[in-house]
Amino acid sequence: MAEKKKLNIGLAGYGFMGRTHTNAYIQADHFFDLKFKPVLKAVCGRGDNVQDFASQWGFESVERDWRRLVERKDIDIVDICLPNRLHAEVAIAAANAGKMIICEKPLAMNAVQGAAMVDAVEKNKVANLVSYNYRRIPAVALAKKIIEEGRLGKIFHSRHLFLQDWTISSDLPQGGTALWRLDANEAGSGVTGDLLAHNIDTAIWLNGPVEKVSAITETFVKERKHNLSGRMEKVSIDDASLFLAKFANGSLATFEATRYARGHKAKFYFELNGEKASLSWDLHDLNRLQFFNHEDEGIVRGWHSIHVTDGEHPYMDKWWVPGLQIGYEHSFVHQVADFLDGLYKGQPASPTFSEALETQKVCDAVLESGKTGRWVTIG
Amino acid sequence: MAEKKKLNIGLAGYGFMGRTHTNAYIQADHFFDLKFKPVLKAVCGRGDNVQDFASQWGFESVERDWRRLVERKDIDIVDICLPNRLHAEVAIAAANAGKMIICEKPLAMNAVQGAAMVDAVEKNKVANLVSYNYRRIPAVALAKKIIEEGRLGKIFHSRHLFLQDWTISSDLPQGGTALWRLDANEAGSGVTGDLLAHNIDTAIWLNGPVEKVSAITETFVKERKHNLSGRMEKVSIDDASLFLAKFANGSLATFEATRYARGHKAKFYFELNGEKASLSWDLHDLNRLQFFNHEDEGIVRGWHSIHVTDGEHPYMDKWWVPGLQIGYEHSFVHQVADFLDGLYKGQPASPTFSEALETQKVCDAVLESGKTGRWVTIG
Amino acid sequence: MAEKKKLNIGLAGYGFMGRTHTNAYIQADHFFDLKFKPVLKAVCGRGDNVQDFASQWGFESVERDWRRLVERKDIDIVDICLPNRLHAEVAIAAANAGKMIICEKPLAMNAVQGAAMVDAVEKNKVANLVSYNYRRIPAVALAKKIIEEGRLGKIFHSRHLFLQDWTISSDLPQGGTALWRLDANEAGSGVTGDLLAHNIDTAIWLNGPVEKVSAITETFVKERKHNLSGRMEKVSIDDASLFLAKFANGSLATFEATRYARGHKAKFYFELNGEKASLSWDLHDLNRLQFFNHEDEGIVRGWHSIHVTDGEHPYMDKWWVPGLQIGYEHSFVHQVADFLDGLYKGQPASPTFSEALETQKVCDAVLESGKTGRWVTIG
Amino acid sequence: MAEKKKLNIGLAGYGFMGRTHTNAYIQADHFFDLKFKPVLKAVCGRGDNVQDFASQWGFESVERDWRRLVERKDIDIVDICLPNRLHAEVAIAAANAGKMIICEKPLAMNAVQGAAMVDAVEKNKVANLVSYNYRRIPAVALAKKIIEEGRLGKIFHSRHLFLQDWTISSDLPQGGTALWRLDANEAGSGVTGDLLAHNIDTAIWLNGPVEKVSAITETFVKERKHNLSGRMEKVSIDDASLFLAKFANGSLATFEATRYARGHKAKFYFELNGEKASLSWDLHDLNRLQFFNHEDEGIVRGWHSIHVTDGEHPYMDKWWVPGLQIGYEHSFVHQVADFLDGLYKGQPASPTFSEALETQKVCDAVLESGKTGRWVTIG
Repeated sequence: MAEKKKLNIGLAGYGFMGRTHTNAYIQADHFFDLKFKPVLKAVCGRGDNVQDFASQWGFESVERDWRRLVERKDIDIVDICLPNRLHAEVAIAAANAGKMIICEKPLAMNAVQGAAMVDAVEKNKVANLVSYNYRRIPAVALAKKIIEEGRLGKIFHSRHLFLQDWTISSDLPQGGTALWRLDANEAGSGVTGDLLAHNIDTAIWLNGPVEKVSAITETFVKERKHNLSGRMEKVSIDDASLFLAKFANGSLATFEATRYARGHKAKFYFELNGEKASLSWDLHDLNRLQFFNHEDEGIVRGWHSIHVTDGEHPYMDKWWVPGLQIGYEHSFVHQVADFLDGLYKGQPASPTFSEALETQKVCDAVLESGKTGRWVTIG
Repeated sequence: MAEKKKLNIGLAGYGFMGRTHTNAYIQADHFFDLKFKPVLKAVCGRGDNVQDFASQWGFESVERDWRRLVERKDIDIVDICLPNRLHAEVAIAAANAGKMIICEKPLAMNAVQGAAMVDAVEKNKVANLVSYNYRRIPAVALAKKIIEEGRLGKIFHSRHLFLQDWTISSDLPQGGTALWRLDANEAGSGVTGDLLAHNIDTAIWLNGPVEKVSAITETFVKERKHNLSGRMEKVSIDDASLFLAKFANGSLATFEATRYARGHKAKFYFELNGEKASLSWDLHDLNRLQFFNHEDEGIVRGWHSIHVTDGEHPYMDKWWVPGLQIGYEHSFVHQVADFLDGLYKGQPASPTFSEALETQKVCDAVLESGKTGRWVTIG
Repeated sequence: MAEKKKLNIGLAGYGFMGRTHTNAYIQADHFFDLKFKPVLKAVCGRGDNVQDFASQWGFESVERDWRRLVERKDIDIVDICLPNRLHAEVAIAAANAGKMIICEKPLAMNAVQGAAMVDAVEKNKVANLVSYNYRRIPAVALAKKIIEEGRLGKIFHSRHLFLQDWTISSDLPQGGTALWRLDANEAGSGVTGDLLAHNIDTAIWLNGPVEKVSAITETFVKERKHNLSGRMEKVSIDDASLFLAKFANGSLATFEATRYARGHKAKFYFELNGEKASLSWDLHDLNRLQFFNHEDEGIVRGWHSIHVTDGEHPYMDKWWVPGLQIGYEHSFVHQVADFLDGLYKGQPASPTFSEALETQKVCDAVLESGKTGRWVTIG
Repeated sequence: MAEKKKLNIGLAGYGFMGRTHTNAYIQADHFFDLKFKPVLKAVCGRGDNVQDFASQWGFESVERDWRRLVERKDIDIVDICLPNRLHAEVAIAAANAGKMIICEKPLAMNAVQGAAMVDAVEKNKVANLVSYNYRRIPAVALAKKIIEEGRLGKIFHSRHLFLQDWTISSDLPQGGTALWRLDANEAGSGVTGDLLAHNIDTAIWLNGPVEKVSAITETFVKERKHNLSGRMEKVSIDDASLFLAKFANGSLATFEATRYARGHKAKFYFELNGEKASLSWDLHDLNRLQFFNHEDEGIVRGWHSIHVTDGEHPYMDKWWVPGLQIGYEHSFVHQVADFLDGLYKGQPASPTFSEALETQKVCDAVLESGKTGRWVTIG
């Protein structure tokens, strides 16, 4: 094998997402035939155990301040796994420093920030990607392929869920490192940015632009103890966010995200119904795609339960043999592989910052509609 | 066995619903231990084959005009299985003639008509029932029981679907005896009255009153040949109807009904998520209830797939033995049994006209919101 | 409608099976367009409540002794729903009296008895049928159609289960009217005749003759109180019966029946694997057939979950509309319809006594192999 | 973090299994808190691309002859991922050289070889493990835990499947590096050693020793072109292997393994039915365990579909968050973790060579029974 060009990774943040991204760099190098070799150059964090993280995963160095990381000459890619509040600031600095950027979703706290980020990466002409990882689950990629081949025909309906149940207890506090997702100052919004953003990203990718939305949002637990102040404070995030949508292609949709749906730990689900066929997918059974083809012969027509583990399914030739499943983290491995492949081919992997901004705009419209009670047209 | 008091049935309409109701009178008498014996006294219809229907099912006589049926002294119960346009007129006449009434759903073309029907039955003090038959599927009745026992705790969310796919072809005509459901003059509305009404009835029954709704409706096929005129005419029904709801108990919901969802012939589905437990049901697997109990021990916690065929499940002691399923038509058999049992006990079976009027009001609000684009509060 | 020729039914036995058969005569007349009209002429039983049964279901008369029933000139069809011990005696008498016979399964206590029954019906040239009702579940009939059309290609494997759990408690007594199935004197065998016989009938029907078997049988609860003696007595039936089979077509199979499988009330299941396709069915979801077609295009290949409720599916044009399910008892309705249709067309419905004798021979071979521990070739 | 003691791995064979084992050493180090650090010291293979494999995965050196590998002083663990024919020879040499051994399953070509291997590791007192990896799927480990806690009560039945479909085409050749599994000289047997061995291992682990078996084996395709000779040669492996078993605890079972079951790529499935509860698992949905608890309250009793992704489920605290799945390869990661943890604690991970010999004996008995047609008691 020829020597590969090395790309030095600088990871900002080493929480849950930092771990998924780090693993992805390692595994992409093992399982994909890439033209670049990612090198775990530096991890940046303020917590006490950042050094342990670096040792565990083999990062060559540690930084304590993201500004230092961004300035380092030996870093090629800045990978942002920080709370949403920091996305814009870090990304813009990194872009201005000429770094490639992989940024966790959502792109930003809001579309205004997001637009500034798009400007920064475009002005500096740096490769950029937002980590909407679920696109790269093989079954989801297969859904995309099926739709692109025109197998659904005109699409009439879709429905989109992201259901969790981990915040039902009012004893759960908010804020701090562990629970910044419950603090609007850190997260920008609640389930809209955390969960619905995934639904919206997938929906746009599969079904085209959203034209308008009517939403309702709710905060079921009004006060929680804040981890930083130690006091009961008002909860300012949305606990649940539901909306109706009309898409540019004329199809109608329902969206729902919540952390108050017992029995669902991570039910990211979508279904699309077209003139000729329908399909659906559920993260809880991530290796399967359900597909109904009206063009099947009548007496044997029925939903196909496709076990997306064959070599001809997206990404699956890189893993094991037919019938053997992969898991959640593989979506990030595919993301690294696609990003590096896009670099090599000069065809940026999706979604870029610019593409992810469309999702951000819909999130903003949902939050606005939830406040005003009016239909909001996407700008 | 003691001689039972006979109750003479006068059936108005002998289409699909006339058949389900007729079968129900016969089967209820065979499988339930009732205090009354329904007698198939007369069937009324204008079509050529009403006599064949009467012979096939053993009706003693035939009428050609519903006014004659309503006036007959020997009729105890008028059972209305006519297009929606006629519900109010026939029901009010029957009430004024002192007849008990079983009326197919939806109650009426709209809430104004429905209110007049309620007045008529209440003024005349006649027993009355609207045929929201799905409440009496054993799995749905079990859901009701589980909720009434408080097993879900506070309810946060529900979602409600009724998905069909039989009108996707634009070659399908509208109107006439076979397709009056596609003609707003006969049906009042499209899927809102035909399908969503079932969802709304079940939702109110399980989860309490709806406070407000925001809807979107759509007519995908704008023109269809009309069976009566033979000409292409504008389609005035709603092909699809989706709405967001807030319930009086604070919970949020999505509702969706359509005849444009490939792969679904009659997917009537609901799910409710409560603080302590969740449940869901699908008409395509009507003998099962899915139940998730958060109070189950952690390592074995999971959705219970309850095969609702045991003797202790609602209605099931009347049928076969555990494991053996029943079907769609049994819901109507249970309806007859409950109606007759209610007569005997002096506790009217649900939903009465008055209860069904609440569903009608939500239907009206959905159609209004679909037109205005505004949230509509239920009156 | 033209007047139909009436056929008078004489029902022997009015237990669980008597009820399914009676309902079937009534419903077949309502839902199928038959050339004959079954008339509930007489029911025969020794129990106190036979008169109540007759009243409930509309039998015109009651007999206390099956010999009287068989001799009555006004009976056309003798329908035998008695414990297995009586099948041969009653059937032979009925045949000699020139009656048509519908007999509950299994045909007899053993193949020797069964052969005598076949002789009797063939000598007297009377129409005859054994009630292997599950063949007439629409999904099972669809499986047959799919196989007959050659869609599976060469068959390599099949597996067959009938799992119940109702005799696990050792407190359950044996014998008497309610529990004659646990008494080998009445039933001939345990699960082999009661449950496995269904599996074998279906297997032969779908996959051709069985060549040889190797079995193991077990009686888990060795003693139970006998309802007649009131004393603990040895249990002489097989509680569980499992066997390996080689079919004449070269395919291999496993069979298993038991009443000791927790979680399964009536799991009658089969799966067949062929060169080109596979299919499976489960009584607990009786309206579905699972079908895998290797000839489907690769990326969308998967098990089809066929909801067997469309008008083009076997029998389903007689019931409701697509998506609406039927239940267990409908298999008996179809059986009556097919029997009467076979009479009219002169093509006897299956399985005749002669065909059911093949199943009986395999049952005998299974019991013999269970005793000897040797492979037994079917005679 | 304290410096960990390094353990040098010498991998013999770098095919499919070599890849799963290599990945496991790396990932175990990243995701588990181990006392030892595995070091990829050397990989041994005769093929041209062994150097590429070493580079891809980071092995420090390459050997061409397994004898050299076994002799190297710097190797602590010899990991045998070679065709079955070589297991005994390599393992005995490694044991005699004082190496710890992880050996792919099945242990050996037959129990005679296996016994010699057990002697070697026991005489040399070297740690040893056979790679029956499926035990370490979290759902399977949960099944074990549930059974060990006595939740099933007395077990009556089990059934065990391993269904594949990749050898149906008679155009597929046999033998050589790619297809040694079809060549009895290399593999010892066909599906008995390759697939059934997994079923037997799991069955013994969950349900205790097998007492006796009655089997049938078949070779559906009698001749295939041999990759080494280039000529059509007789196929000497078993294409399918089915057996009945009686276990020492009195329970009965069916086992079936085949590569001729359309629709199943890797359907490794087991179900156990006990007095109080039942459970089942399917490799095609590897993150789920189905559990039926008869002690659940009657009206909500049903199979629990347990999504085995919570932190309290076996191994899952090491991975992501509840709801997020893992895949096939994780079973090998857990195996490495358990092996190293067992070394540290002085409690060998299962199954040792000695334990795996029991599985080998059952395999031998199955093959013997398949030949003789007799029940064979396990020695």
